[in-house]
Amino acid sequence: MNPVLVEATRGGTRESAHRGAIAVLDADGALVAAIGDIDRPIFPRSAVKVLQALPLVASGAAEQLGLDDEELAVACASHNGEPAHTTVVARMLGKAGLDATALECGTHWPRPEPVLRAMAARGETPTALHNNCSGKHAGFLCVACRIDEGLDLRRYAAGYVRHDHPVMRSVTAALQAATGFDLAEAPRGTDGCSIPTYAIPLRHLARAFARVGTGTGLAPEHARAARRLREAVARRPFMVAGSDRFDTRVMERLGERVFCKVGAEGVFCAALPERGLGVAIKVDDGNNARAAEVAMAAVIEAFVALDDGESSFMRGLSDMTLRNWNGIEVGALRADAALRQALEAPALSRP
Amino acid sequence: MNPVLVEATRGGTRESAHRGAIAVLDADGALVAAIGDIDRPIFPRSAVKVLQALPLVASGAAEQLGLDDEELAVACASHNGEPAHTTVVARMLGKAGLDATALECGTHWPRPEPVLRAMAARGETPTALHNNCSGKHAGFLCVACRIDEGLDLRRYAAGYVRHDHPVMRSVTAALQAATGFDLAEAPRGTDGCSIPTYAIPLRHLARAFARVGTGTGLAPEHARAARRLREAVARRPFMVAGSDRFDTRVMERLGERVFCKVGAEGVFCAALPERGLGVAIKVDDGNNARAAEVAMAAVIEAFVALDDGESSFMRGLSDMTLRNWNGIEVGALRADAALRQALEAPALSRP
Repeated sequence: MNPVLVEATRGGTRESAHRGAIAVLDADGALVAAIGDIDRPIFPRSAVKVLQALPLVASGAAEQLGLDDEELAVACASHNGEPAHTTVVARMLGKAGLDATALECGTHWPRPEPVLRAMAARGETPTALHNNCSGKHAGFLCVACRIDEGLDLRRYAAGYVRHDHPVMRSVTAALQAATGFDLAEAPRGTDGCSIPTYAIPLRHLARAFARVGTGTGLAPEHARAARRLREAVARRPFMVAGSDRFDTRVMERLGERVFCKVGAEGVFCAALPERGLGVAIKVDDGNNARAAEVAMAAVIEAFVALDDGESSFMRGLSDMTLRNWNGIEVGALRADAALRQALEAPALSRP
Repeated sequence: MNPVLVEATRGGTRESAHRGAIAVLDADGALVAAIGDIDRPIFPRSAVKVLQALPLVASGAAEQLGLDDEELAVACASHNGEPAHTTVVARMLGKAGLDATALECGTHWPRPEPVLRAMAARGETPTALHNNCSGKHAGFLCVACRIDEGLDLRRYAAGYVRHDHPVMRSVTAALQAATGFDLAEAPRGTDGCSIPTYAIPLRHLARAFARVGTGTGLAPEHARAARRLREAVARRPFMVAGSDRFDTRVMERLGERVFCKVGAEGVFCAALPERGLGVAIKVDDGNNARAAEVAMAAVIEAFVALDDGESSFMRGLSDMTLRNWNGIEVGALRADAALRQALEAPALSRP
């Protein structure tokens, strides 16, 4: 049974609580913190987009097509579908000689209420570019472009979401190399955007992110690719998520000291390069915005050296006052006290 | 530790799970099913709107103002803020000689994506009428109207959301009488719409709903009020929630055999008048749409006599195929097998 990570209170009484597990490891696999069951395979979903984007750089496709920071960052994104995002994805596809009709991620309306309202007010309807995974898929198409020099790209790339397509094979190989987990034996599912997702233990995910942050334990071309992708995201954090999103806000504030990426169903992974650590979180009930993000904020507070302003900023994400529609304070959403204790203990003893 | 009520699977593997507790009792307090901890006080939030609406009818206000089925139903509602809802709430306020400016529930955009998009496309912005609680608040104002015959209603009604206002005192008294729980000693919080919410055990909530369904154990004027409110909701189930909402869909299909009402933070209550039972559910992590509703569907399947078409309809709410943006089947969202077993056992032994 995993412990409570995050609680929501009302009038001083606990109203709801989120359980889950957290792994913090270094790139050699040394355990720095383990809360709950970190060895059960879980679907990491979009939290591993940076690992899935390694072939985009490692294959030489990014260089060949002249992809810039914005394009590399959006290839690692679960973006809001804001105009800035769809523009960059379209530009990236254009560099590969393609357009939105080549995307196989499906179409959905942007999720954030203000983005949705703004689109509706402009009389727009969504295309595949608005899918939060469209940048990742554009990256896959760029990889196809590289593998497939000289052939009919459009026909070659079709079906790139299938697990046995050459593009997806290279993506899965990168995921397996970084996590060191045997994906051939892992439970497999289909992700929201139709690519395969493999269940991987938090222990392996955290180590993979420590590797992304340090390069240690990665093949040289993957280490270079990870560095390039982290650099792009640190320079363009808006691309990886968007307005009022946790990932964007934290990376805008903390820069290269944190590379974090949310995934569906309460998953959150991060590299803390300065500390040489990787983090992986899974909330049992699948809640992202209210649980995985709050827990990640508490982890960052525990493991990243922050000045007073940064500490106060992060505390605003790990211990929030909840207000109702009249602005009256009704309760709090915060990292559980026991989670803070569990994170503090190893933090104090780390080298 | 509460058991798993609902699981989400992907590719045949459990991806996320929701824990919680369920109480099923009759009006005399006899326990028919108890799953998890049903004696811990929980905030019932909007699930008890029908109890909070008892004074509207019992005071004679509804009759005096000539409130119709739609207006009584919307007084029990957490509605979608669709035009049909805001029109009825405005009409109800008009009967009391008031308008939307008297509402103290605050303003928010409607939550359902299609409703939000349609409003934005029409260039509208929300008023307090769009607040999902506006019907309940209009009901409170109608009660004020009755208490306050002959005085300056607007001035008298101001502050009706406060726990010590005469209107809220009568609402709290009705809640206490129906649940038989000492609210003076209960943990108190402020609800999203600014009225007080009192933490009450599921055991007491379930018994209160059995009483709402049967009249047994209620004061005669509350028994009559409960019957009138159930009748109004059964005739106008759209008013209590709206398009594509669980409460509306189930009551449109099953009529007076089920009176169900969702609340925030994973709470769900129901009366099953035909069986003389009341139901109360709290999902630990506060998830409504994905957990409390699925669990309630399984409870209804276990305790309400359904024909084949109805069974199939309810199974569609308790065991859903999940599809991604391309319409590909990716998993399931369903009542946990252990929950079904726990519900079947007492169901088989009931008289």
